[in-house]
Amino acid sequence: MDAFGVTDETTDALQVRTPAQFKALAHPFRHRLLFALGPGPATISQLATGLGTAKGTVAHHLKVLTEAGMVQPAHTRQVRGGTEQYHERSYRRLVGETVDSETTAAMLGAVAEELAVDPDPLLHLRHLRLTPEQAQRLRSTLDDLVDDTEEAAPDQPRYGVLVALYRRHDTPSPT
Amino acid sequence: MDAFGVTDETTDALQVRTPAQFKALAHPFRHRLLFALGPGPATISQLATGLGTAKGTVAHHLKVLTEAGMVQPAHTRQVRGGTEQYHERSYRRLVGETVDSETTAAMLGAVAEELAVDPDPLLHLRHLRLTPEQAQRLRSTLDDLVDDTEEAAPDQPRYGVLVALYRRHDTPSPT
Repeated sequence: MDAFGVTDETTDALQVRTPAQFKALAHPFRHRLLFALGPGPATISQLATGLGTAKGTVAHHLKVLTEAGMVQPAHTRQVRGGTEQYHERSYRRLVGETVDSETTAAMLGAVAEELAVDPDPLLHLRHLRLTPEQAQRLRSTLDDLVDDTEEAAPDQPRYGVLVALYRRHDTPSPT
Repeated sequence: MDAFGVTDETTDALQVRTPAQFKALAHPFRHRLLFALGPGPATISQLATGLGTAKGTVAHHLKVLTEAGMVQPAHTRQVRGGTEQYHERSYRRLVGETVDSETTAAMLGAVAEELAVDPDPLLHLRHLRLTPEQAQRLRSTLDDLVDDTEEAAPDQPRYGVLVALYRRHDTPSPT
């Protein structure tokens, strides 16, 4: 089980290791770019339209991701007026043994931005006490639920599903 | 099922409605303060120690929460050097029919800060296509899993569990 996993339909894993990779993952918009490239290669124009952002913004963040080895140039296509460059993700799944707090914050920031588009999302947080056995069981159940859900046909709506379980810092109990 | 739910061991619900309440919920630290008050009343000193922050910071954010009607003064206690004021949450569960994107972002920001303390949390995001029936089923399963997990004894470790499921914006599919 990975401490940190982002999966997009498939399984080839990139281990997040280098400072450039952690830096690349420290910005919510770059997570959204990586999410947008999940289904396949896209041009800067397509990404800008899809994410509702300026092409210059997309180009800047793509460059950071490319330099970190997380995005790479794909095929080109001849169109009226020139050549269009497609970009693709160089991995299918990100894994990191060290959960970096900036990466976590940026990833959850990107999820918050995606959540904002759905008028009726499920978002449920609970704080509770668990025995180590209960925590381990709940962790496996949640992780498997995300892994085992079967992908529907390509004409069906796109969803994001997120699960998290973490041990909280023990604060002095109020007396 | 609520679009937005934060539960802490019990069930009396506060409906998030007023601008002051939304403003109060727009800051990650205020979510952490509300989380910290989940188990019971605490003093500013206790909260500052528990959250690793200055007392002035705690006092400022408590004031915002108190003005929004989400925190209220509880009992006082006589100690050497004066009187200690305890503060408590005025509700057990927050519900909001309108998911406000600032609240969502701040709540997830608070979760990111809590996650950073656990060296080995579960954090798993997946993007996939689902039929409306699959989405509804997964939503119920995740929501029930969080609701139905039984709370362990007060001497067991404290955990946070978060589940989210949302429909993503349909971007033009890459060609």
